[in-house]
Amino acid sequence: MPTDIEIAHSVKPLPITQVAQEAGIDESYLTPYGFDKAKVDYALLNSPEHADSISSSALVLVTAINPTPAGEGKTTTTIGLADGLRRRGVKSAVALREPSLGPVFGVKGGAAGGGYAQVIPMEDINLHFTGDFHAIGAANNLLAAMLDNHIQQGNKLGIDVKRVTWKRVVDMNDRQLRHVIDGIGGKAQGVPREDGFDITVASEVMAILCLATSIADLKQRLGEIVVAYTYEGKPVTASDLKAQGAMAALLKDALKPNLVQTLEHTPAFVHGGPFANIAHGCNSVMATRMALCFGDIAITEAGFGADLGAEKFFDIKCRMTGLYPRAVVVVATARALKYNGGVAKANLNEENLDALRAGLPNLFRHVQNIKDVFGVETIVAINHFPTDTEVELKVIEDECAARGICVSLSDAWAAGGEGTLDLADKVVAAVRKTPAPVPAFTYETGSDVADALEAIATKIYHADGVDFTPAAKRQLAELRENGFGNLPVCVAKTQYSFSDDAKKLGAPEGFRITVRELKVSAGAHFVVALTGSVLTMPGLPRVPAAENIDIDDNGVITGLF
Amino acid sequence: MPTDIEIAHSVKPLPITQVAQEAGIDESYLTPYGFDKAKVDYALLNSPEHADSISSSALVLVTAINPTPAGEGKTTTTIGLADGLRRRGVKSAVALREPSLGPVFGVKGGAAGGGYAQVIPMEDINLHFTGDFHAIGAANNLLAAMLDNHIQQGNKLGIDVKRVTWKRVVDMNDRQLRHVIDGIGGKAQGVPREDGFDITVASEVMAILCLATSIADLKQRLGEIVVAYTYEGKPVTASDLKAQGAMAALLKDALKPNLVQTLEHTPAFVHGGPFANIAHGCNSVMATRMALCFGDIAITEAGFGADLGAEKFFDIKCRMTGLYPRAVVVVATARALKYNGGVAKANLNEENLDALRAGLPNLFRHVQNIKDVFGVETIVAINHFPTDTEVELKVIEDECAARGICVSLSDAWAAGGEGTLDLADKVVAAVRKTPAPVPAFTYETGSDVADALEAIATKIYHADGVDFTPAAKRQLAELRENGFGNLPVCVAKTQYSFSDDAKKLGAPEGFRITVRELKVSAGAHFVVALTGSVLTMPGLPRVPAAENIDIDDNGVITGLF
Repeated sequence: MPTDIEIAHSVKPLPITQVAQEAGIDESYLTPYGFDKAKVDYALLNSPEHADSISSSALVLVTAINPTPAGEGKTTTTIGLADGLRRRGVKSAVALREPSLGPVFGVKGGAAGGGYAQVIPMEDINLHFTGDFHAIGAANNLLAAMLDNHIQQGNKLGIDVKRVTWKRVVDMNDRQLRHVIDGIGGKAQGVPREDGFDITVASEVMAILCLATSIADLKQRLGEIVVAYTYEGKPVTASDLKAQGAMAALLKDALKPNLVQTLEHTPAFVHGGPFANIAHGCNSVMATRMALCFGDIAITEAGFGADLGAEKFFDIKCRMTGLYPRAVVVVATARALKYNGGVAKANLNEENLDALRAGLPNLFRHVQNIKDVFGVETIVAINHFPTDTEVELKVIEDECAARGICVSLSDAWAAGGEGTLDLADKVVAAVRKTPAPVPAFTYETGSDVADALEAIATKIYHADGVDFTPAAKRQLAELRENGFGNLPVCVAKTQYSFSDDAKKLGAPEGFRITVRELKVSAGAHFVVALTGSVLTMPGLPRVPAAENIDIDDNGVITGLF
Repeated sequence: MPTDIEIAHSVKPLPITQVAQEAGIDESYLTPYGFDKAKVDYALLNSPEHADSISSSALVLVTAINPTPAGEGKTTTTIGLADGLRRRGVKSAVALREPSLGPVFGVKGGAAGGGYAQVIPMEDINLHFTGDFHAIGAANNLLAAMLDNHIQQGNKLGIDVKRVTWKRVVDMNDRQLRHVIDGIGGKAQGVPREDGFDITVASEVMAILCLATSIADLKQRLGEIVVAYTYEGKPVTASDLKAQGAMAALLKDALKPNLVQTLEHTPAFVHGGPFANIAHGCNSVMATRMALCFGDIAITEAGFGADLGAEKFFDIKCRMTGLYPRAVVVVATARALKYNGGVAKANLNEENLDALRAGLPNLFRHVQNIKDVFGVETIVAINHFPTDTEVELKVIEDECAARGICVSLSDAWAAGGEGTLDLADKVVAAVRKTPAPVPAFTYETGSDVADALEAIATKIYHADGVDFTPAAKRQLAELRENGFGNLPVCVAKTQYSFSDDAKKLGAPEGFRITVRELKVSAGAHFVVALTGSVLTMPGLPRVPAAENIDIDDNGVITGLF
């Protein structure tokens, strides 16, 4: 099997203008970035004809069981499914997150799908793409510079330097910046304080960009960002610093979804990529709308497993936008099931039917949650790995069938759309079955944060309840006092378990969730509940992938994977 | 007079493909970024026909007298001159530096010319443009992350954490980051050390990008960057960290010059923007070559006054590349001359003939230097300001005429190319006078750093000589020991005076230059000599320009100037 980048190079992309034309995107809305990438003006979403096509198209969410540390191919399945639908004559489009630059140089490699189910040009998409993340970083860091400049120039707002919550970002895995003291060097060099950097995708600006529905909405949300608290404990916002206009100007182009294509020339809107722990982990609302606009079936994905990704997709993104899926695909792999059955990462390639059976309850619980809580048709896609044995695949299929769960073996990685024809058929059937889904959420809009958390914990995680640490209790009180107590909740939790303990695999019961910290993302309009330590700035490994990345004299890049 | 952004918006840009076509750039070399910007593949520079047209075209450098703190309109004159030439039927092209993002939000505003002599789209050029600076920042910061990661992961190279010289960058005016302590927070969070951030344009990666002639050359130079010293005092390079391949991959597109247009549709290659103090302050070599390739006369500029900008243009850029100008335009303004004659910034708008006469020796010395040291024909362009009086302009013209100095009044700001017709004629005449210039430099290639500094100080600054502080003497010895003692020199000095004292205006004599610090830019292939404190990270003012920048619902930006 050739490498991802070799496969990507083996396909000649269609001119992006042709991809757009075939999808029905009028050229006047298109801003080309080279010949194989373009930005699409969101103005088209306001035209009446397009509004109609959005509401008549079907949205399909791709989510997954609790993943293993190795990743399970959700993006690959998403892309392959869109290609499979296209092969079946369905007009499809895909909406995906943009990869973050930093991790490309670490261990993770790229994030544009894999094998024969990729979006291209994969090097560009994995590196700077159309500059969205750089723009987000610049907007984030302008706000930080204006904040510290305000303090330096007299601090009229009375900002408590010990309660600055806004961090600077870089799109790099750089542990050296996790904790810093800045502003040292004397009177003219800023105000000494403890500080730290996040990776760009962790910026609230990223979450906001992904939820914004217009420039006005973007600017409003940017202005609402809480950056610090005063000595009296009152929130200080970006609009107090008059930063939102310049930030929005920096985000003018970044707000436009990017159009690329899959290896099979299906239109792909790749746009935005917020963290799936401290943010909602979905591509931009605008990209999803565009995929609905130009695909009769639009496929999108959400980060991590369904306990985190799908829950936030429904309770945050769908709630805020009125979008709602007509089917959900839950990606599982034999490997991930064995991991959930207790097999160590190093041994996942070995057949182990006992572990597989022990892991299956994890899959069943996710499927049941989606049916019970959100009421959406569900199909299990088994993402086929070369190491899977026939017997293993048979066990999964049989066990699903025994429970009435629709299941399909997906060969997107090895065969692209040809490998997902059965999955495509089953998705089409599911979509037809639910012409008008009735939106349902885990908790009611406007619920108190504590009640929302209790609902998520009991209904989605199947925990016995939620405990708050003393610090979290104080923060909860402060949030309520500042008017943030009834926002939707975004849970930061280990992705490896339904619980907040990464070691409790499968379908654990008899546990409680401990919330250690609560903070508001006032511009994103949600409260983040942290259930453990969350790393918002990754580090590089002993041998960074960067050491093997190279470019030849013709500009051909190697070492990306 | 409308604002710059209003004027910019009043002109409908030609499709960039048309600008390229009219200039003779084959479409196959073009990568469009929207409809009004494109990157041009440097591969075209290697084609035989284009190599011919480079050597047959004339290069014209625009430099200036010592500027005032308010700026004197060198870029405006450069653009206006190219437009004037075009109006005279000369095929012209312009090569300019890209503006830095950070200062746009401070006091400076944009840097894409002014009035009726601008390059457009000015908002894009002033904000993210085609992402070059973001790519440079990412490459710079990847190297920093790999460096600190190397130390964290065992420090096989024996890097002395007290002698890390490589800094991280952000493209933001952010004084809070000038001096930091990073790597704090415990064993897993990096290695605590003193550190600091520069603004992106100060990165050596920027200087390298502007001097590189191919991907191979870029990679070679990136690998040569000295990032730290070992405990034994040996230089540690980027290639020791195996970073140059990934850095070059990040710079793949950034290395391609950007094509835009002036308000009069003259092709403009806007590319690269290294600092004019710690770096050489000129646009990229590739952009200059392209302007020569597609203009019979190519106009380019260099940072600050001629003592810094022109000297580095000749001694660094021309020396390294074989390019050489056939004429030099020295921009002067009545205001800057009065400033050099001792008038305070606040009073520059008032007529003051005595001060004007007292400042003229500054102009004459710059002109004489260019004739004596570099042997190039020189034209003085008086950049006309609305506050200039007729009498003032007459004095300048008469005094120049009395010394046989060719002088022209330029109205580029108020009238675009129509305002520079006389200047254009005089430039054409000068170019014809020197069909084959013989390159000459201030010091011989391979001179010892101390000798080169002595030559610059005596021949260009008219100082009595150079003194080294004890620290600089030690650094000089170390540079020589490490094999960097014979590189060209890049002087960081106040731009307001020929001397290293900002208050010694006009044409001072009887002073010495004190070198306080010497450091190698081993990838850029020069040694930086600092003659005072140089700010490589600006701060924001009390009321940042950012507070007035806004964007409306149609995406129209206001408040940029």
